[in-house]
Amino acid sequence: MSGGVKAKSFVSTLVKNSYGKSLVRMTKINRSGKIPTWKEITVEIELEGPEFGGCYYDGDNSKIVATDSMRNTVYVFGARNDLKSIEEYGLALAKHFLDEYKHVEEVKVGISEDMWVPITVGQGLHDTSFVKDRSDLRCTQIQTNRNQTKITSGIDNLVVAKITNSEFTGYITDSYTTLKPTTDRILGTKIQARWSWSGTSCDFNAGHTKARSIMLETFALHHSLSAQQTLFAMGDAVLAAVPEIEEISLTLPNLHRLPFNLEPLGLENKNEIFVTTSEPHGTIKGTMARKK
Amino acid sequence: MSGGVKAKSFVSTLVKNSYGKSLVRMTKINRSGKIPTWKEITVEIELEGPEFGGCYYDGDNSKIVATDSMRNTVYVFGARNDLKSIEEYGLALAKHFLDEYKHVEEVKVGISEDMWVPITVGQGLHDTSFVKDRSDLRCTQIQTNRNQTKITSGIDNLVVAKITNSEFTGYITDSYTTLKPTTDRILGTKIQARWSWSGTSCDFNAGHTKARSIMLETFALHHSLSAQQTLFAMGDAVLAAVPEIEEISLTLPNLHRLPFNLEPLGLENKNEIFVTTSEPHGTIKGTMARKK
Amino acid sequence: MSGGVKAKSFVSTLVKNSYGKSLVRMTKINRSGKIPTWKEITVEIELEGPEFGGCYYDGDNSKIVATDSMRNTVYVFGARNDLKSIEEYGLALAKHFLDEYKHVEEVKVGISEDMWVPITVGQGLHDTSFVKDRSDLRCTQIQTNRNQTKITSGIDNLVVAKITNSEFTGYITDSYTTLKPTTDRILGTKIQARWSWSGTSCDFNAGHTKARSIMLETFALHHSLSAQQTLFAMGDAVLAAVPEIEEISLTLPNLHRLPFNLEPLGLENKNEIFVTTSEPHGTIKGTMARKK
Amino acid sequence: MSGGVKAKSFVSTLVKNSYGKSLVRMTKINRSGKIPTWKEITVEIELEGPEFGGCYYDGDNSKIVATDSMRNTVYVFGARNDLKSIEEYGLALAKHFLDEYKHVEEVKVGISEDMWVPITVGQGLHDTSFVKDRSDLRCTQIQTNRNQTKITSGIDNLVVAKITNSEFTGYITDSYTTLKPTTDRILGTKIQARWSWSGTSCDFNAGHTKARSIMLETFALHHSLSAQQTLFAMGDAVLAAVPEIEEISLTLPNLHRLPFNLEPLGLENKNEIFVTTSEPHGTIKGTMARKK
Repeated sequence: MSGGVKAKSFVSTLVKNSYGKSLVRMTKINRSGKIPTWKEITVEIELEGPEFGGCYYDGDNSKIVATDSMRNTVYVFGARNDLKSIEEYGLALAKHFLDEYKHVEEVKVGISEDMWVPITVGQGLHDTSFVKDRSDLRCTQIQTNRNQTKITSGIDNLVVAKITNSEFTGYITDSYTTLKPTTDRILGTKIQARWSWSGTSCDFNAGHTKARSIMLETFALHHSLSAQQTLFAMGDAVLAAVPEIEEISLTLPNLHRLPFNLEPLGLENKNEIFVTTSEPHGTIKGTMARKK
Repeated sequence: MSGGVKAKSFVSTLVKNSYGKSLVRMTKINRSGKIPTWKEITVEIELEGPEFGGCYYDGDNSKIVATDSMRNTVYVFGARNDLKSIEEYGLALAKHFLDEYKHVEEVKVGISEDMWVPITVGQGLHDTSFVKDRSDLRCTQIQTNRNQTKITSGIDNLVVAKITNSEFTGYITDSYTTLKPTTDRILGTKIQARWSWSGTSCDFNAGHTKARSIMLETFALHHSLSAQQTLFAMGDAVLAAVPEIEEISLTLPNLHRLPFNLEPLGLENKNEIFVTTSEPHGTIKGTMARKK
Repeated sequence: MSGGVKAKSFVSTLVKNSYGKSLVRMTKINRSGKIPTWKEITVEIELEGPEFGGCYYDGDNSKIVATDSMRNTVYVFGARNDLKSIEEYGLALAKHFLDEYKHVEEVKVGISEDMWVPITVGQGLHDTSFVKDRSDLRCTQIQTNRNQTKITSGIDNLVVAKITNSEFTGYITDSYTTLKPTTDRILGTKIQARWSWSGTSCDFNAGHTKARSIMLETFALHHSLSAQQTLFAMGDAVLAAVPEIEEISLTLPNLHRLPFNLEPLGLENKNEIFVTTSEPHGTIKGTMARKK
Repeated sequence: MSGGVKAKSFVSTLVKNSYGKSLVRMTKINRSGKIPTWKEITVEIELEGPEFGGCYYDGDNSKIVATDSMRNTVYVFGARNDLKSIEEYGLALAKHFLDEYKHVEEVKVGISEDMWVPITVGQGLHDTSFVKDRSDLRCTQIQTNRNQTKITSGIDNLVVAKITNSEFTGYITDSYTTLKPTTDRILGTKIQARWSWSGTSCDFNAGHTKARSIMLETFALHHSLSAQQTLFAMGDAVLAAVPEIEEISLTLPNLHRLPFNLEPLGLENKNEIFVTTSEPHGTIKGTMARKK
């Protein structure tokens, strides 16, 4: 049946497999309330299980849920589910695949959501017109099997900078060091946050809003001795403010602004003129969990 | 002198030339006021003139302002200029090249500015911490020679959508047509605007703010019979609202959301579930000028 | 009819308009020969004409060719045309819009083509399997009205570097200059070329192949006193080698590799270790025409 | 010491940490041989260890190797090491951090390399001029602690398509299915491969070249009953051909080309005209290990 490899025996075994559909983009208007709601999400579905092995070895598709059918299912559940939050919608979608296909062992559903707000008209907000005027994205991943379900949510691409209360001194100086210590530098980053929820029926929307604002606030107020310290303070503040969040991981690139040397050009740089850079950058990561 | 091509004569002449520096990124903190200001811009400089020809034909660099020196100049003028607006800064920078180098015939300076705002802390705004929470960019281009100066400003990447008051009917139907007319479609676009100013000392900041808000407002309120009609209404509204703007060009991609066909899946789509697409898309352009 | 703007008269007139469809992507397999051919192209169509004005002013769509119909037309001509070259296909497509719709004044068709080649199997090439193993793109634009037709073709994203025979000395040194002259630098660029053809029935495929190879060869062999001089040599070589090309424009970013200063780290840099940069970069442009 | 958070005690503990430098870009010319070699790589370094915790909790930087020093180290090892392969260079770099800083527990070094080749001039290859005419990237990751070292290498962005010998039939059909089975479809993908080496002194260059060509060849020759089956055949062929490779993971997006329906337009589509799509796409993953 399988042409080119038919006659030969394999030297290897399949030790891991998964497959699914990526970049399924859906716009949902919910017209059930007084004013309509508008959401735009991008969905990824991934299925795992040993029974898919036959498809890899022999091209036996009898256990295969076509990825085209997964795409259909995204839209069907778009119609069936209120989409009150991406977490609730994603949970319903993930559960469906476990319920419907008994040979599926594990399901992952990943969703990212663009952040639209109503357009301001005069003093008010327009009911049916929207602007995507935030650059950050809200996201979630549901991972579920027949024993447990884990919901992880977060934020991507939240770009911030602070121009005072940021120092970097006291690090190791050796024969590889040329950096000078500073007690007054710009600290700029693009926040990537991922947090795990304590259960599957949390107040996901309120938690997202609170986590986003407390991270911004902490970033603004913190007196930073290192990007690491600010990262920890931000994660700790989220855990303090949102009881339903159990653990949070932050990835903060350190997007350097380098003082431009104006001296050879006959001017003094009064800590005002910087070269904005994108490469190379520091990358600081940390995972914080609630104390037991 | 020029190795590989030394001995041979050229078959061609240089009919146009220009050169410059691109992607010069500057962060400027202005610490002169009560609270500091924070700007991040990306600058491009381009010089033209017949006297640069020797560099192309013979590798004679004696008239060449090194692009590295152009980069230096961006930062020097960052220090010298208040950067109250990108237009005023760009004008000073462009004028410099004409004043300093008599053989330069024309200068173009292009600038784009990220839209940062102070971080909200409690009920107020933080003085020294910022978030880039708008996805649109403000931009300008200064084009100047010894006879005239033209300033063109605009907005890139302002993403909007409206879910009612958008129709598309009455277009040509022939053997290439399969589209069905609709009196209720989503109209979504990513606004690119460019407007020319009536002079070189306009209120650029106020004009930008007004143009941005009036475009959003018009997009929200307009009953659209076509993307073209909405484009014209938006441009016309800007010209009506900002007397210092003489002409405006808009480019609106028509970013289609296609109703997903739920029927084969046993459901009805009550105009709620759409496939968000990025390719292909319509592209609608128009330039509006004030009536004389 | 037009809601929000109904009652008011316009302050502006439409001085320019165009509209069309972008990012129409087509895969064409031509099965007519002994072995099939495989092409992947992306098409953009743009129509202009004063009779489209009614659509902008009043939402009158009666003259509008729906952009969805333009998309259909791309595929219909994909079936009808051999697609021997993107130029011949684009010309047929552009001509169609002028012939079919008398109120269309001007048509632009832009096409870019991915560069696929057969996969090598053993000592030969496979007939029906392909790899996109070039990073450059081939492109064309057809611009036509009832008086004339202009075909411009070119190459994007052809990335090259040379490590000897590149100097940069003798430029202006003044108070804005910090760059040191060098007689041995890396010259690296990403070639963007656009050339115009002398007619509408040239040998487009042979011309493309010849222009690409002669540009690479000239870049390799040229002893460069400046990026400008190398640009001119490359353009001149294309005009010398391909009689059907009338004029050529080149845009060459100067993608700097900066020697890394190893001295503070106790080592000598023997012109071997460089920081690869992407911003800022020089941008060198020139247009060469055949001498008359 | 730490301003905003000084007075309060933390609710959380740091359960995981790492930090490093990303996007360190280096060009290396090796001038030691008869003809020079040219490499361009992008390096990422990441350090882990419990002793970094003080930096997160208290802003104590005394154990911190500044990421700026990591950047310096990339260039220092660029000068010290031959860079015969990215694996050998990366291994030396990773080992350095373990040797030099006793409190570092684990080091990760990730490298990607652009695929440059000499420019063809006449019948030969030019010695000192290069073109980046492959779109795929070679990459490696070294992960090392004081107990073990793991080297994983691979390929990104290798784009291929086959137009015959690809079927997809026999999958589950239920109320979510609308896809029609086919015995003749285009199979197109963008290969991402990652393989682990059996040791730290393998022939990395030969292994890379062999793995790349055998994957292309297998993709071309395989009669595909599913993308999964082709994935397995490709991975199995690599393990059969390169004894030093122990395990291989492949991720293959299924980049659909959809037959365009020409019937409403009065034409027949003889399996020749397709809509090239990028979203949504299938994603097929599998890990193959040598049978024991």
